[in-house]
Amino acid sequence: MRFDQLIISIRNQVNNDIREIVLPESPKYLYDPIRFTLNGSGKRFRPILVHLLGRLMNADQKSISKIAIAVELVHNFTLIHDDIMDNDEMRHGQLTVHSKWDKSTAILAGDGIFAMAQILLCSIEIQTKFICQFFNQTTLEVCEGQALDKEFENDVKIRENEYLTMVEKKTGALLGACAALPAILMNRTSKMVSKLSEFGRAVGKGFQLHDDLLEIYGDPKEMGKSLGSDIKEGKQTYMVIKARKNFPEKWDQIIKKEPTHNGLDKFRDFFHTSGIKKETEDLAKRQFNLARDAIKSIEFKNKKELFMFIDLIENRKF
Amino acid sequence: MRFDQLIISIRNQVNNDIREIVLPESPKYLYDPIRFTLNGSGKRFRPILVHLLGRLMNADQKSISKIAIAVELVHNFTLIHDDIMDNDEMRHGQLTVHSKWDKSTAILAGDGIFAMAQILLCSIEIQTKFICQFFNQTTLEVCEGQALDKEFENDVKIRENEYLTMVEKKTGALLGACAALPAILMNRTSKMVSKLSEFGRAVGKGFQLHDDLLEIYGDPKEMGKSLGSDIKEGKQTYMVIKARKNFPEKWDQIIKKEPTHNGLDKFRDFFHTSGIKKETEDLAKRQFNLARDAIKSIEFKNKKELFMFIDLIENRKF
Repeated sequence: MRFDQLIISIRNQVNNDIREIVLPESPKYLYDPIRFTLNGSGKRFRPILVHLLGRLMNADQKSISKIAIAVELVHNFTLIHDDIMDNDEMRHGQLTVHSKWDKSTAILAGDGIFAMAQILLCSIEIQTKFICQFFNQTTLEVCEGQALDKEFENDVKIRENEYLTMVEKKTGALLGACAALPAILMNRTSKMVSKLSEFGRAVGKGFQLHDDLLEIYGDPKEMGKSLGSDIKEGKQTYMVIKARKNFPEKWDQIIKKEPTHNGLDKFRDFFHTSGIKKETEDLAKRQFNLARDAIKSIEFKNKKELFMFIDLIENRKF
Repeated sequence: MRFDQLIISIRNQVNNDIREIVLPESPKYLYDPIRFTLNGSGKRFRPILVHLLGRLMNADQKSISKIAIAVELVHNFTLIHDDIMDNDEMRHGQLTVHSKWDKSTAILAGDGIFAMAQILLCSIEIQTKFICQFFNQTTLEVCEGQALDKEFENDVKIRENEYLTMVEKKTGALLGACAALPAILMNRTSKMVSKLSEFGRAVGKGFQLHDDLLEIYGDPKEMGKSLGSDIKEGKQTYMVIKARKNFPEKWDQIIKKEPTHNGLDKFRDFFHTSGIKKETEDLAKRQFNLARDAIKSIEFKNKKELFMFIDLIENRKF
């Protein structure tokens, strides 16, 4: 099977598995927003990565599916809560839960999805203890990443390495777990678990740097949201940190003068001509190459699919 | 040791165990509100119940402590999120997390505490899978209870049995888990697990009915919050449901006329003279007796402490 067909087929399976989750009818206050969230159209990169690793290790398909869905559930739970904290109204081209309903509904929907993820993980027959432990340490780290992200908002003293630490926790940790959990399931060496985690974490950092680029240079239709809003909200992206550090006066001007709609074009011009766009692309490339190095150092028989997964993430346009 | 001394000694141990949880210094955004919450002065009824069962079954002290703290952590996580949803500003005589900081901080603090509870549970050496499964099914049920509570707000059609279902999920399920989890740890029969859960659930319902009474007849100083506020917010307590059903016109008058401070005295007079206070006390008593019946049907050698625990809950004044 060609790799792109493989990805489509895994994504279909993930979507099927999610559709097959049986949700009670009542209480509607809890399960309607959960149903709405699970029917959304995520790209499912995280569960896809879990399945790719499962294939490589010939792991039990049923257990791998459970890990894949649990990871996607936790991802969705954090998105719902993050969207409240960040006042984001749109996600994947549809209203966020707190916009469609309200904050209370969204808080509880997130909590419920988190509990559902745990129930699913606990139903795995082998290595349950170690899987749950790694999974929840990861979730706590994701919370730490979101906390740093909130701390950094409007803090103009943040430096590049602090930003990368935040990104590693907020985005890298969960992708690291996607790669590591199948190895934990298969009771592989702790060295392999740690190398796989390293690979996923690097992919996550590259992914987030690309996200920052897409926030400015993406296609608003494909992104399913308005662009540049994070920067206007005071988010510290890598590009903003670079701009403030290397072009403080120019950046001050751009930020102060452009609360309006065509601010996006000014952002695009500035990041391009200042070289910050190129620098961010280079840093993202370095992360993806670190991910490749981690894979090279693991003794796997067939690693081709993991390299192709990195290419897939590196080349995404939305 | 006298029972009241035993309770004090267990409570001290629980508070010690909580104090010994090592929290990272950073990110402060996450760990400061968690530290604040864990330093609060809860009554620790839930972990105390876990310890009482552990004593009865001669369970491993270390595992029991982990279950006890995990249950208390989940209780605290749900309180933090419920307080946001219910706009409550005070809890146990101190500011709620979202009042002291803000809603985003409180959402994330709750999430972090939930993840910490899971990590703790997963570190138990035996029966981990079954403990985690029961624990998370319970947490999902608590979410369902909170969802029903939100659905019922200002819904004047709610009947008594719907209220009791809500209370069983919101308060009963976790107390049921406190009693059941030590038996799961000790691999006791599913019949015993289910009887212990039944006992805890009944205690929880009695506890909540008493809470509704204390919300009107308690001592504001000892309760650490202003009284009658839930009713003014539109919460459906058992007493409100009774009032609306049996004295619709009179109740309408009281609710409409009394948004002000001395509303509390009017509430007190009305519930007393209408007989609703007595009826609620009787229903609570029935729940506590159901809890006693459940204990009687279990083959335990020394059940005395469980009966005394029921007395303790039944006689609490705040």
